[in-house]
Amino acid sequence: MNKLLIVGTVAFDAIETPFGKTDKILGGAATFIGLSASFFNVKPAIVSVVGEDFPQEHLDLLSSRGIDISAIEIVKGGKTFFWSGRYHNDLNSRDTLETQLNVLADFNPKVPVAFNDSEVVLLGNLHPNIQISVLDQMQTKPKLVVLDTMNFWMDCALAELKEVIKRVNVITINDEEARQLSGEYSLVKAAAKIQQMGPQYVVIKKGEHGALLFHDKEIFFAPALPLEEVFDPTGAGDTFAGGFAGFLAQSENISFENMKNAVIWGSNMASFCVERFGTERMVSLEKEDVVKRLRQFRALTQFDIEIA
Amino acid sequence: MNKLLIVGTVAFDAIETPFGKTDKILGGAATFIGLSASFFNVKPAIVSVVGEDFPQEHLDLLSSRGIDISAIEIVKGGKTFFWSGRYHNDLNSRDTLETQLNVLADFNPKVPVAFNDSEVVLLGNLHPNIQISVLDQMQTKPKLVVLDTMNFWMDCALAELKEVIKRVNVITINDEEARQLSGEYSLVKAAAKIQQMGPQYVVIKKGEHGALLFHDKEIFFAPALPLEEVFDPTGAGDTFAGGFAGFLAQSENISFENMKNAVIWGSNMASFCVERFGTERMVSLEKEDVVKRLRQFRALTQFDIEIA
Repeated sequence: MNKLLIVGTVAFDAIETPFGKTDKILGGAATFIGLSASFFNVKPAIVSVVGEDFPQEHLDLLSSRGIDISAIEIVKGGKTFFWSGRYHNDLNSRDTLETQLNVLADFNPKVPVAFNDSEVVLLGNLHPNIQISVLDQMQTKPKLVVLDTMNFWMDCALAELKEVIKRVNVITINDEEARQLSGEYSLVKAAAKIQQMGPQYVVIKKGEHGALLFHDKEIFFAPALPLEEVFDPTGAGDTFAGGFAGFLAQSENISFENMKNAVIWGSNMASFCVERFGTERMVSLEKEDVVKRLRQFRALTQFDIEIA
Repeated sequence: MNKLLIVGTVAFDAIETPFGKTDKILGGAATFIGLSASFFNVKPAIVSVVGEDFPQEHLDLLSSRGIDISAIEIVKGGKTFFWSGRYHNDLNSRDTLETQLNVLADFNPKVPVAFNDSEVVLLGNLHPNIQISVLDQMQTKPKLVVLDTMNFWMDCALAELKEVIKRVNVITINDEEARQLSGEYSLVKAAAKIQQMGPQYVVIKKGEHGALLFHDKEIFFAPALPLEEVFDPTGAGDTFAGGFAGFLAQSENISFENMKNAVIWGSNMASFCVERFGTERMVSLEKEDVVKRLRQFRALTQFDIEIA
């Protein structure tokens, strides 16, 4: 079984949407990535940090999904990273109400020896220096490195971010971030410029409008599944990345053709994430739900047109 | 050859985009629809009205594309409908600078006898009463009636609009209009409600984010082709409708399966329209460009995933 090394936050979220409000619940990029990747035939490990306030049951949940949590450091007397936010009515935009870095402020990631030869590395959204440190600790060059990041790091750590971008195969960002990073409005031009920065593959996430995969002159598009209800978008991007990397780690094939399938798999996993608050839906999700919905994705986009 | 009857404006547009500005150029929903439909093996006719100021060369252009223009009334001493607008930087929104109804104010459409048995009728964006009048003049029940409309008529002629909606097979509107018409935010719920108003098929146009086709419990999604440059979105929706209806009229197959192809064809035609100002690109377009790009649409969305 291929190893998938994930670095990212394991955290508390408090979320307000037009449909309701939560107290502190389980969140964090690595949590969503790990839960999503656990649906594939891979061996995932999470490198992260939490405080002493972090409930054992959350760690047990990750373990029960076959995720190696030995590199989730528990800081004695420390408090876990906390984010709280409020989504607007359209669920496409949100305000951050509060961010408490807590133990994340001094996070020094340690890649476990058992995973320093992982075939696939997924650098979840974190300070680029942490992402670089993880890459530096790899003993064997990974077959695939996937980077997820956001505008925050473009604003306040652009030089470091560009260093990590140089060293990855795939970058996943949203449309506004692609525009910011490249200075190009057209996503086609933006993706071309970003490829020149390092990654051979650029995935542009457009939320309810789907995701685009760019490679060389080629483009592939995966739609988001139109849903009756979108309840809470938190973690959708991470869940996408977890499905994307999980599928690629499982299939050991990083061709463009197979990366199309990975984008569909990522979209499929993300479509569940948004159906409930936080990780709720990902926790109740069964393999058969996932397969059933994959058929819907196929029906949604496949056509049989005669070309003269 | 099947007949495709088109009712809509033939007009002057003056357009400002971040890339430039035009004087009065050829525009109008029926113009874009007709040019787009003329790429299919159908016999289109336009029912419309222009003023005496309308250049013969524009009429000649439509004729040269095999479009029957005998029902484009020329009002002696009248002035042609004129619209002018300015697009914002993202090209997704625009302000109307001026609308001169002119001869459109008293437009009384007359369906030519030779086309009152048309297999397909496309009701372009106009006052619903004009659309109803066209349907009333049909001597044979059309196999397919496609309605294009907009929020303006929802605001000021909702009762009449609902009358025409009752009588059509397909409605094409954008996402905001679908929400306004149905009172539902979710496009899945919106499309279900709109189907209850009459049309068995609902096409929701999302501009650069593609188009959704809803029928019963089924959904199909056609992406917009990601372009390096979008120059002027004017007429894209009409060009989409013209390709959609033109393909269906040509293929004589109005199954859901074939309607998927029609949505792809509509998206394909619209992707050209936006590349130049006004009708410029549609006029220079060759059949081989169209076929070539259709292959790009296939590459953009087709995947071959193994489902366990």
